[in-house]
Order: sequence, then C-alpha cells, then structure tokens
Amino acid sequence: MPTTVSALVTEGASKPLERSTIERRDPKPHDVLIDIAYAGICHSDIHQARDEWGGAEFPMVPGHEIAGTVAAVGDQVSKFSVGDRVGVGCFVDSCRECDNCRAGEEQFCTKGEVQTYNAREYSGEQTFGGYSQSVVVDENYVLNIPEGVELDVAAPLLCAGITLYTPLTHWGAGPGKKVAIIGMGGLGHVGVKIAHALGAEVTVLSQSLSKQEDGKRLGADHYYATSDEQTFTDLDSTFDLIVNTVSADLDLEKYVALLALDGSMVNVGIPSNPGSIHAFSLANGRRSLAGSKIGGIRDTQKMLDFCAEHHIGAEIEKITVDDVNKAYDRVVDSDVRYRFVIDIASFDR
Amino acid sequence: MPTTVSALVTEGASKPLERSTIERRDPKPHDVLIDIAYAGICHSDIHQARDEWGGAEFPMVPGHEIAGTVAAVGDQVSKFSVGDRVGVGCFVDSCRECDNCRAGEEQFCTKGEVQTYNAREYSGEQTFGGYSQSVVVDENYVLNIPEGVELDVAAPLLCAGITLYTPLTHWGAGPGKKVAIIGMGGLGHVGVKIAHALGAEVTVLSQSLSKQEDGKRLGADHYYATSDEQTFTDLDSTFDLIVNTVSADLDLEKYVALLALDGSMVNVGIPSNPGSIHAFSLANGRRSLAGSKIGGIRDTQKMLDFCAEHHIGAEIEKITVDDVNKAYDRVVDSDVRYRFVIDIASFDR
Repeated sequence: MPTTVSALVTEGASKPLERSTIERRDPKPHDVLIDIAYAGICHSDIHQARDEWGGAEFPMVPGHEIAGTVAAVGDQVSKFSVGDRVGVGCFVDSCRECDNCRAGEEQFCTKGEVQTYNAREYSGEQTFGGYSQSVVVDENYVLNIPEGVELDVAAPLLCAGITLYTPLTHWGAGPGKKVAIIGMGGLGHVGVKIAHALGAEVTVLSQSLSKQEDGKRLGADHYYATSDEQTFTDLDSTFDLIVNTVSADLDLEKYVALLALDGSMVNVGIPSNPGSIHAFSLANGRRSLAGSKIGGIRDTQKMLDFCAEHHIGAEIEKITVDDVNKAYDRVVDSDVRYRFVIDIASFDR
Repeated sequence: MPTTVSALVTEGASKPLERSTIERRDPKPHDVLIDIAYAGICHSDIHQARDEWGGAEFPMVPGHEIAGTVAAVGDQVSKFSVGDRVGVGCFVDSCRECDNCRAGEEQFCTKGEVQTYNAREYSGEQTFGGYSQSVVVDENYVLNIPEGVELDVAAPLLCAGITLYTPLTHWGAGPGKKVAIIGMGGLGHVGVKIAHALGAEVTVLSQSLSKQEDGKRLGADHYYATSDEQTFTDLDSTFDLIVNTVSADLDLEKYVALLALDGSMVNVGIPSNPGSIHAFSLANGRRSLAGSKIGGIRDTQKMLDFCAEHHIGAEIEKITVDDVNKAYDRVVDSDVRYRFVIDIASFDR
C-alpha cells in the first residue's frame, strides 16, 4: 500500500509551490524509506519548476538535496538500518550495466540515470523530489551521512557539495596547488570550504568584494573582484585549476589566461550559450577547458565522508515550507547566503 | 670570424626562396656548429615566409626541422662532440629562469623562447633557420639523434614529431586507450606511428578514405572518413584522446561528442577562428578541450629516443634546394606524402 505524505507541489510553470500530498511506494526488497528532515533549494529546482529548460512534467515536487533518517527498509536491504542518517542526491537509479555505471559514474549512465524528480523510474512511475515528508529509494542510490556534519547543513552537499568535490579532486586540488573558484554562491562557497580542506591555496573570483569577509572566513586565501580589470592582469597565468560555478556567459579567453602551465578551467555552471575559445589560448600553456557534472555514488559517499571529517557543511538559511516561493525569488536575485534549506518538519506546523 | 654559408633566402612575403648566403657566428663557449644534412618543410614555414601570420622579418631563412652532424664545438661544450648526429627544433634559446623554463617546458618561456628563424636572439642577432648549410646553436638547445633513425626521416620529428608526442604522452596514450588522430598529413601521419608504438588503439579521422591504405600501414587500427556523417554516429563516446592536427575550423561539438568518459580533445593545429563549444557538451562525460604546442628540450629528446627505439621516422619526399618553391605550393595543395625534406647537400650541386 502506498503511503500518502505531505509535499510541496507545483501544477505548472507559472504556478507556485503549494502544500499538497503525494504517494510514496511501499519499500520493495532493496528500497529504503527515508523520513526527510531537510531539503536544500538548488537553482536548478527553480529552472525545472518554472520549466525554463523545457520538458517539465507536472505535477512536480522539486528537491534533490535530501537529508533524513531511515524509517523502514525492504527485506533484502543490507546497507542501511532504521535510524541511519542518510542522504539522496540528484538521481535515484541508473541502468547499472553501461560502462559509465560500471565505472561508478552513474551520473553519466548511457541509458540515462533516473533523476530524483521531474523524471520517470524505468518502470514508468513519476519521481518526486525532496520537498516532501518522505522518499523511497533503492539502497544503492542512498548515501550515508556520517556524524560530524548536521543534517541541515549536509543536505546541500548532495548536489552543491558533490558538484564541487568532483572537479576539485579529479583535477588534483591539494597542497601546492593554486585553485580559483569563480562565483561565491550556493556552489562556490562549498567549493571554497572543500578546496581549503584539501590543502589548496584558494582564490575566490567574484563580481564584487561584497562577500570577501565570508569568503576568507570559509577558507579563501585570496579574494578578487572580476569587475576590476586589474584582477586579470594581476592573476595572469596563476592557477592550476579554476572551477567556474557561474551560469552567466563569461569571456572564456579572459579566464583561461589566468591558468598556469597545464592548468584546467572546469565549468560546473551551464550557461545557455556556447562559449568561444581560440585554439591558441589553450595551446599556449597546454591548458584545458573542461566540464564536470555532480558525481557518482561512490564519489558522493567519499565527499560526505570527507566533509564530515572536516566538519564541512553548507552555510544555510533555514526556512519553512511556506517560505519556499519567496525563497525562489530570492535565489533568482542572488539574495541568499548561501543556500536555502527547507525544514521539512514545518509541514506539521 | 663569422662563416659565410649557403642558404635559401626570401626577401619578402611575395618573393620566392632563392639561393644566397648568410653568416653564421663563430661558436661561443657553449655553442655547437652543426653541418645541416636535412631540413624538413613545415606548413608554418610557408605561413611565415609569406607573412601570413604578420610580423615577418626579411630576409628570412625558414626551417625548424633540422638534422645534421656536429662540425665544431665551443670550448665549454660538454654534451656534444664533433661527428655527433644532432637535431634542432623550433627554438634555439629561452630565458632559462622562468617557471616554465625551469620545469623543462621552454616552449612556454614567459620571456619568450627564441625561435629558430624569423626571430631575434636575446642579443638582438637575427635568427636564420635550417634551409642552410650550417647553424650555430647553444648546446642546451641541441638534441641528440640516436642511431635507429636516419637523419632524413628524423628531421621532421623535430617539429611534427614532438608536436604529436607531447599530447599523446601527456594525455596517456597507451595500451587499453582509444586514440583518434584528426588529419592524415605531415603531423597526423607521425602521430599515427607514435600512438601505435605507444600501444594505443589508433583511429584516423580523415576527410576521405584516400589515404586509408597508408594509415593502416603506418599503424592505424581503424580509418574513418569525416565527410561521412555515419562516422559520427558510429564513433559516439568512443575515444579517450583525440589529437586534432587540422588547422581548418572544425565543428567542435561533433568531435567532442566522440570522446568517452573523461576523454580529452587536444588541438595542435591552430585554426584562425575561435572554436565554439557548449559547457554542457564538456560537462556530459567530464570531457576536456585542450591545446598543446611542441614540447620542451627534455621531452623532445625523449621523443627522439622513443622514435629511434621504435624505428619511427617521418614518411618523406626528398627534394633539392631548387625544388623548394614548388614544394611550398604542393604543401598548400596537400599534395605531399607526407613531409618534404630538403637535401642540404644539393647546395653543392
């Protein structure tokens, strides 16, 4: 028997999120039923709820930064027990058979991984995300949230955290490496913390210096305003790695020029328009322009373990379920330091 | 006393190369005087002789694919002796002090390495290239050409060889790796040989199948025509590494889509126009778009040692000094299989 639970539901691109109910399936043998405690608000939730990327399916329950505790398990679940602190990120299943799934990079599943919301299970069942009281997920797509990080600040790690952890570790951020993070927002501020904890020398490149104090408190060694042209002169050929968290169209030439020998600029924000780069700008210094997209289950677990060990969580503003529409507008206005997290217990208030 | 030697000199962008003479300096304490046996013709020689890149200085003696034997050494030279088989590539000096020089990547010298021709020594002296009977070069910028490769087929390795060897080794071409070479010309054909010798599974992506037989003979496992759209369907998400030797403007999206998870596309050809790529195309599969430019002295020596060990030389058409202008036109028409090499002894005929 499916269970009826409270959720924030939107019925269309121009409709608000409203309190309603959805059904969650009974746990199958490998399923975990999770009582959700917190759900982060990712900018991509807004793009999808407002159908700005096309193809949205309504009703929709957004949310792919989920933290909670295990309330029940199917009879063949071996990885989790009732009471465990757990998380769910951007996907809840994948084909498990393609080269990428077998490599532990399920986010690149060639059959197409099953997104946590605004998607369909392979069975055809619609997926609903974390703005709800519970969720049922196959144990192989559930993460352990270790002691050392609270559930509220852990929630955003499930998307923002892994989005930054992957490029930072894949491209070798660590002692002796100079790393720049473009953008001091929901993604960027977590990147600063992780890069600092990895031992890199961290520079924030932000439009202005308005968040400089925060940036340095979170671990940045240097902070520069990109509105100041002098920044690009001062930092020419400096960085081993630049992670770009900004979705605005940037002048790639200007940023690639900040890369040292063999440096890489990795985009995790996805601007609407293609970027333009001259082959010479990459050949000169043997530079790379790359992209990265969240991470697989194995790496997401590694990220959570790393963050717990270093007591890294997101900087959050906690809101109730009734604040979400207002919060969406504030995210669009960049008026949040640095991530909204919905207190799911507020459904009962 | 400088020595007067025969050389092919052009007096201007629209002038032909003609037999004339230039002066070579007396070897300084660390200099090596090289009797040139062979000089390869690189397409960039033509761009510079015809001032297609701007800033050309005339009179000019092109040539940066130089092979010969040591005729004399300065009194502090320790690395070479008279009679040694040696080569000179694209540069003859660098600052030796910047981070890149100290890293052995003199081709990225931040002061600006001294190009073998169409440039000035730091002393102000004009540099003249390999289309001449001899050249005087500091021993630190001279390469040893080991037994195992003949001087005539070794000459093109000094530019074409290192241009391909660097990206292939830097990006890990080897057993179990699928490597594509775009373009089956002066650069590409050497890339096929080196990638094959490194143990990679090699695919040539050429406009047509006209050179397929050669490609397979030189080491390609597969050969595809890029004029056939089916190629892009068949090879979707296939390659760990694509080295693009073509200077024409390519549709980067089409080629990046051929990269497997964590694959890199490295441009060594330099198209005139910037390329366009969507951030999503790189994020999907965590792909990289990169560039590479020849290699440092240490890696150039490694390349020559590797080529000698594997008996790799360029496929060449040997010409006399009087054939060079005709050869230039044929290079422009892609009518050469696969590199023209000037027999410098023909100055005396």
